[in-house]
Amino acid sequence: MSSRLRGLETIRALIVAIGLVAGSSPAFSSPVEVREAVEGYIARHEMEIVRELWEALSIPAVASDAENIRRKAIFLQERLERRGFSSEILETEGNPLVYGDLRVEGAEKTLLFYAHYDGQPVDGSKWAQEDPFQPVLRAGRLEDAARVLDLADQTGLDDDARIYARCASDDTAPIIALLAALDALAAAGRQPTANIRVLFDGEEEAGSPSLVSAIERYRDRLDADLLLIIDGPLHPSDLPTVVHGARGILTLELTVYGPRVPAHSGHYGNWVPNPAMRLAQLLASMKDDEGRVTVAGFYDGIDLSPADRSVLDLVPDDLEELERALGFTGADTVGESLQEAIQYPSLNVRGLHSAWVGGEARTIVPDQAVAALDLRLVRETPADDLYSKVLAHIRGQGYHVVGDDPTDEERSAYPRIVKLLRSAGSEAYRTPIDHPQALRVHRALADMWGVPPVVKRTSGGTVPIAPFVRLLGLPALGLPTVNYDNNQHSPNENIRIGHLRRSIVTMAAMLMME
Amino acid sequence: MSSRLRGLETIRALIVAIGLVAGSSPAFSSPVEVREAVEGYIARHEMEIVRELWEALSIPAVASDAENIRRKAIFLQERLERRGFSSEILETEGNPLVYGDLRVEGAEKTLLFYAHYDGQPVDGSKWAQEDPFQPVLRAGRLEDAARVLDLADQTGLDDDARIYARCASDDTAPIIALLAALDALAAAGRQPTANIRVLFDGEEEAGSPSLVSAIERYRDRLDADLLLIIDGPLHPSDLPTVVHGARGILTLELTVYGPRVPAHSGHYGNWVPNPAMRLAQLLASMKDDEGRVTVAGFYDGIDLSPADRSVLDLVPDDLEELERALGFTGADTVGESLQEAIQYPSLNVRGLHSAWVGGEARTIVPDQAVAALDLRLVRETPADDLYSKVLAHIRGQGYHVVGDDPTDEERSAYPRIVKLLRSAGSEAYRTPIDHPQALRVHRALADMWGVPPVVKRTSGGTVPIAPFVRLLGLPALGLPTVNYDNNQHSPNENIRIGHLRRSIVTMAAMLMME
Repeated sequence: MSSRLRGLETIRALIVAIGLVAGSSPAFSSPVEVREAVEGYIARHEMEIVRELWEALSIPAVASDAENIRRKAIFLQERLERRGFSSEILETEGNPLVYGDLRVEGAEKTLLFYAHYDGQPVDGSKWAQEDPFQPVLRAGRLEDAARVLDLADQTGLDDDARIYARCASDDTAPIIALLAALDALAAAGRQPTANIRVLFDGEEEAGSPSLVSAIERYRDRLDADLLLIIDGPLHPSDLPTVVHGARGILTLELTVYGPRVPAHSGHYGNWVPNPAMRLAQLLASMKDDEGRVTVAGFYDGIDLSPADRSVLDLVPDDLEELERALGFTGADTVGESLQEAIQYPSLNVRGLHSAWVGGEARTIVPDQAVAALDLRLVRETPADDLYSKVLAHIRGQGYHVVGDDPTDEERSAYPRIVKLLRSAGSEAYRTPIDHPQALRVHRALADMWGVPPVVKRTSGGTVPIAPFVRLLGLPALGLPTVNYDNNQHSPNENIRIGHLRRSIVTMAAMLMME
Repeated sequence: MSSRLRGLETIRALIVAIGLVAGSSPAFSSPVEVREAVEGYIARHEMEIVRELWEALSIPAVASDAENIRRKAIFLQERLERRGFSSEILETEGNPLVYGDLRVEGAEKTLLFYAHYDGQPVDGSKWAQEDPFQPVLRAGRLEDAARVLDLADQTGLDDDARIYARCASDDTAPIIALLAALDALAAAGRQPTANIRVLFDGEEEAGSPSLVSAIERYRDRLDADLLLIIDGPLHPSDLPTVVHGARGILTLELTVYGPRVPAHSGHYGNWVPNPAMRLAQLLASMKDDEGRVTVAGFYDGIDLSPADRSVLDLVPDDLEELERALGFTGADTVGESLQEAIQYPSLNVRGLHSAWVGGEARTIVPDQAVAALDLRLVRETPADDLYSKVLAHIRGQGYHVVGDDPTDEERSAYPRIVKLLRSAGSEAYRTPIDHPQALRVHRALADMWGVPPVVKRTSGGTVPIAPFVRLLGLPALGLPTVNYDNNQHSPNENIRIGHLRRSIVTMAAMLMME
């Protein structure tokens, strides 16, 4: 890790874009001093920090388990109060939010940290350990058969050690890191440069259904100059990472109809239209050979400035390695790179189904064929807008569009029928790449780590918090800190101890930001 | 039924094609006399005939049940011997064939009747009766809630009564009808005009795997002037039907590859190529909007003569009714009609699968997408030939074609990879529409029923007997006689008593054919 960080410092000379001038800025009176103080504190209090995380991870925290979720909320509230926060359990239509407010004398700015304290549902049978909510400490990676350690026997931990538990990286470690950073600063006699507010969500992994309606009720508590979302893994390069937005999503389901029931392909093939072929033709009409969407106006309004492009170019993706890892060659060319590609909305066939394949295949003309699509949205392409364009395209292909299975009358009236279902959709958000609050964060990270952060103009994925961010109207940045290989959303989720340490330092950088 | 037959006689005046001049031919010294004699015999011996059929249907006869299949073979052998056949059980690599040879003094021609005595596998839970091999007599259609009758109480049966049992129509009733026709002629002091040979197959519903190799062993017993395949239902018009051939079949399975495992559609959508979209594009490249195959040379060699076309035109398909029944409008236009369409090979997508749809759908780029295809073959388009053309087409779309899942090296070397699997294929057969032996059959049916038969140049479906027909080298005709709504291959298979009677008369027409 640190050798990788050092290696990457050599590219710093090349990087002089959008205020990302590293090392020379006076953003901290002395970032090195802060870092040394925090790292010293971590070294002295390591087992305390790990035990607090361990305790937090021992509370089952799946959104559907309201009772245990509330236990974890109360646990966190109490831990915030220990650090001098004025803390509340904010009731919502669903699981409670944990809120904390720490006023700093003389501070002119306010930072709002968002994280979620629930975790993905677990399938215990797929985990190496008995119970995903009984943390297990290992000397290294499970995949490398690292041995299990007894926490009670440890007096210090190697950077490569890992704690395995649901929520470990996503997001309980960042929450504990934030608390530890506050402790480290307090121990050094320093106080944050801004008022600190925290909001911990108890149902993010269930889509944060109560978050938007909570704004109305608790808007006054949520005011801030900047929202920092301390969720997600670092860029695969392991460099400090800042994420300016996330794509939204709209899902569609298309069902094309053939005969009312499957028809004998011998008796009727060549005569009864085949819905699987029709669906293939309809889908094929939506993209060209290079993977670019051919639906009229699909990419309208997207204009990448030279500054945007240089930010994209600076993301150190190793695309050759990524192709090897994913097992393909020859990417689609919606953009010139992966980073450019995700600046555009996508149209992805995420599933196909018609009758049977393999040993189950039968000699029939299927009665219907279904395609499940997801469209990733960007700031310039709202869900309703893209939906209208896709709908117009489908109609342009001669289809009668219905919302339910067609009636006999519709079957007799229209040669081409498609049922089109859509989700409500979740919009994208994006904070401008040169927003003053963002530039502060870039600079603070660069100063703290001696290397400019990877700045992602948008993440390709979608986050439940996006509607919240849009409604709140704050500049918002994703600040991921955990190891890329944390098995987020999968069995054997973990946090690497070295990354826990780095998370604490990064949180301190935010707390001390000028 | 008979009113329908009478109604259709009114179109006879229009039909003067390929020797189908009805009514005026002296093919029988007196067909009316033969018909009256046979119908008189049926009226007097009806319960005997039904009981013989009942007894045959009471022997479980699924190809995989070797013991019971042999019981049925021995039953049939014994029934043939009662009628004066010299009969044998012919051993094969699989289930035995039942063979019979009836020499007629002075006969110059030999007719070979083929039928199968096995039935489709049964799923007893889907039948209305306890056991598909314990026949049930009903006063009418099960779908009309017709009551069950006790066979022992009956002294005669209505035309609309039905016997429900596996094998009822497919093919045990035609076998029993042939035996009854021989009895009826014998009772009238008549003998067939040809030597009669019969061959009953014990594994047709399992694909007749042993039939072709049996030719080598038993070729001398199988010589004849004409092979009559007494299998399948009448044309939906319920008119006498003759079928000159059947399409063959070749099945293909295409698997297009994306990332090695499903990839996050947000992080990688627009960049990692989507195999479901690629498969859709590949399939779409194979057909135009009208359903015509665009693979180069796909229809080569097919040339319908004016005589062929008039035969196709004479098939009284009610296409509007068929569209209504199947629940669609706007047929593909490979041919101008259903009958013309099935003179051409087809390319049918019988199944599609990629990842998940509906409630199971996940926001991923799938790892692969599979299409199952069946290609129906005609006499002019052998399996290997069409396979080569489709393969060339796929390569022309830029695909690297493999026979196994691609290796890492292949994934890194080829942007487009498809796994293409094929079946061995089963070829089509077709007896020329004006073959002299065929014209005899057309005439005999026309004379017997007073209406020209529906002549199908080919059936759309595929029959396991086709390779046998091709190797044997005899002119071969399908002579279906049972009700169209017999639920062949489905639960609640049945034979309508009126159709059993008609089958006997049709068999007599064949036995007395000039």
